[in-house]
Formats: sequence, C-alpha cells, structure tokens
Amino acid sequence: MNEKLISTLREKYEITFTESMLLEQAFTHSSYVNEHRNLKQSDYERLEFLGDATLELLISEFLFNWYPDFPEGKLTKIRATIVREESLAKFAQECEFDQYIRLGKGEENSNGRKRPALLCDLFEAFLGALLLDQGLEAVRKFLAIVVFPKIEAGVFLHEMDYKTNLQEILQKNGDVMISYELVKEEGPAHEREFYVAVKLNNEVIGQGKGKSKKSAEQEAAHQAILNLSAQESTQK
Amino acid sequence: MNEKLISTLREKYEITFTESMLLEQAFTHSSYVNEHRNLKQSDYERLEFLGDATLELLISEFLFNWYPDFPEGKLTKIRATIVREESLAKFAQECEFDQYIRLGKGEENSNGRKRPALLCDLFEAFLGALLLDQGLEAVRKFLAIVVFPKIEAGVFLHEMDYKTNLQEILQKNGDVMISYELVKEEGPAHEREFYVAVKLNNEVIGQGKGKSKKSAEQEAAHQAILNLSAQESTQK
Repeated sequence: MNEKLISTLREKYEITFTESMLLEQAFTHSSYVNEHRNLKQSDYERLEFLGDATLELLISEFLFNWYPDFPEGKLTKIRATIVREESLAKFAQECEFDQYIRLGKGEENSNGRKRPALLCDLFEAFLGALLLDQGLEAVRKFLAIVVFPKIEAGVFLHEMDYKTNLQEILQKNGDVMISYELVKEEGPAHEREFYVAVKLNNEVIGQGKGKSKKSAEQEAAHQAILNLSAQESTQK
Repeated sequence: MNEKLISTLREKYEITFTESMLLEQAFTHSSYVNEHRNLKQSDYERLEFLGDATLELLISEFLFNWYPDFPEGKLTKIRATIVREESLAKFAQECEFDQYIRLGKGEENSNGRKRPALLCDLFEAFLGALLLDQGLEAVRKFLAIVVFPKIEAGVFLHEMDYKTNLQEILQKNGDVMISYELVKEEGPAHEREFYVAVKLNNEVIGQGKGKSKKSAEQEAAHQAILNLSAQESTQK
C-alpha cells in the first residue's frame, strides 16, 4: 500500500486502517484490476455502493440538525447539491485522493485521474471502506473535517441559488446584461408549467421549466451554467 | 398519542419511544397540520427526509453483506426494488401503520390513507423518528423484523426479473401466449437503442426501450405489469 497515503490519512485525519486491504480496494479502479488479473485484487465499486449510502445518511443527519427550520423540500435540494458529482470530486481532490488511485493504462492516458465521475466514485468508495473498517462514527468524524465546515459556512446554500451564481460567473469579465424571459406557460391552474429563457446580451444561453416562474428561472440559470462549463471544457 | 399504536409497537417490535412527540409527528400528515393550526403540531416531512437516508444505508449494508459476490450494479438494482414506493407502502401496511395516520378531512375523503405514496412517506418518517429517538441500531433491529427476512427469502431478487413476474401474473388465469417483438433499433453501434413490445395473445400490453434487447424486454415487461395493475385498480 502507498506509504504516503497512509501517513496523510494519519496526519490529516487521524485515520489508521486496521484492514489495509480495504483501503487498497478503495483506491483500485476496475481498469487496474482488468490489467492485473493475477493479483486477485477487487476494484472499489462495491465499496462505492456502501459509501454512497453512508454519505447520504450522514449529510442528511447533519442538515436536519443544522437547519432545524428548513422544510423537507429545501433540505432535499441542499443535500442534492452536496452529494452531486461535482462536489464529491472536489472533496476527493482536496483530500489529494487523486494521487493514489490505481488506474489501468488506458484510463491513465485518457486523463481518468482528473475525471470528476471517477473522483466522485473514489470518494464514496473511501467512505465505504472506512465504514467497514471503523464504523459509522469514524466516517462522521472524517466528514466533520472535510464536508461539515463547508455546510456551516453556507457554501452549498449559495450554490443552490443558480441565478446569483450565473451572474457571478458572467460578471467576472465585466458588466453584462442578463435577463429572464417567460417564453410560455401551459397546463391547468393547479398544474401550471412555466417555461423561461435566460439571455445574455439578448442571446439565449439557457432554458428551464418549473411549477413557478421562480423555479423555472432557477432551472434556466442552472442550464446556462452547465452550458457555459461545457463550452469551457471544449475550448481547453 | 394513540394507545393501540404504542402497544402494537411494544408487542410486535419491542419498541417504546422515549419522546412520544416524535412518534406523534411521524404519524401526522401535513393536511392534518393545516386543519389544526392551533395545535402547533409538526408534520412528518422532515422526519421522512431523515428516514429515507437511514433506510438507504441499512438496506445497502445488509445487501452488501448478504450478497458478497454481487457486483455494484446488481446491488444497486435490488436496492432500488426494495426502497421504491410500492415496497415501502407494503411494509407500512404490514405494520398496520395506515390505521394510525392523522389526516386532514380532504385527504381522508379522497382515500389518502390507502395511497401508496403517502404510506411510503409514512414508513420513512417512522424510521426517521426511530433514529432520532433511539439511534441507528434500533432502526436496524426493526428492519431485521420487517424487511431483512424478505431479502433473505429472495423476494426482491425475484421482483427484479419482470419477465418472469409478468408470466406468473398472466398465467394465474390459465395458459397464455406471451411474446416479445423487436419493434426497431436505432442509433450508432456504441449507443444503440432497442425498442421491444410485449404481446399477450398477439395484443401489445407493454413497450420498452433499452441498450440491449434483453433490457428492453425487461422494461417492456415492467410496463406491462404497471399497465395491468393500473387496469385492475380502475376496475375495483
């Protein structure tokens, strides 16, 4: 097992695995297993299954207590913002987990080590391994270092507001004109649906629908952010 | 609080709540709260948020251990079969929880007490309340009576196979001819999509699409089961 990973875990998070095989498995991608069949090593996918559910419960519990007055709908939205791929990939990188993944050659060459989907799975797999090795309380302690302080700082609450977020992204390069336009509404009164387009200097950059104008605008802003980041990564 | 619920929980599941307010909240629907604003009672929605995640983790953990050789994909499918609305509503009814929900009049008159979506939420809310009152181990013990034995008996593994399931449903009333027909396939080779129709005595009763003929057939069988059960409930 990688000595640097072991000492990082011990020093930064006070974690020492009892079963080092579990830790090894958490950092082993299926492409590595396929190339090293003689090692009889398991990949991290089953651990990821377990870690995903562990994360979901611990985040839910924390949000439930941290926001005693939030209704269920709002809690569900924040939770989704925290457990989504983007966020988990960031956590994995902050923990420098990307350095320690064991990848097959093809995956390595296609830059798999930096792929958000892979980093997200890796983060969950690590939580699954930690649960099996040391129980739920140990995972809670780890998240109390890596994730909970961000919730307390309001990071995800902020990300949820896509309109604000979009404005900040676009204004980085100076003043811009962002407008939201109701394109159409349809359906009976109690199930009305609103369609909104968001425009940047009169050009449509995202569209969304929702049960209220407000939620359709949020959805349109979210789409615009996704479109922009897709463009960005194509240009790189 | 309802005395019969309290004694049922004690006798059937050896559960006695410390905070009876939590138990009360778990059985209180928002429609009841709206009609009794003077009571300052909370509805079960926040508890449901917590219970949903608790269930997900405990089921995941059990499946992980029970099926040590199943790959992640198969575990995820079985988990989805267990935590879906239909299954949870059934658990709630088996526990006779439907008797104890506090509903508003409108909801009561429109037969809300039997609505699967409501029963499913209620079941999750109960788990959330139990977690808060007595911790994760108590919820695990409860599921070990209500859910885990069904997993051990292979109930959900079986439900996953929709083709077998459809055949059994249709054959209840004697011999039938069920056939699967490839309607079309489209898309490039690496993203091909297959469209399949399932026929009962040459009449189409369900359709499905998928990335393989096999998965499209499963999807068609699933649709047929849903169509049949929708017909059945209309006829009642």
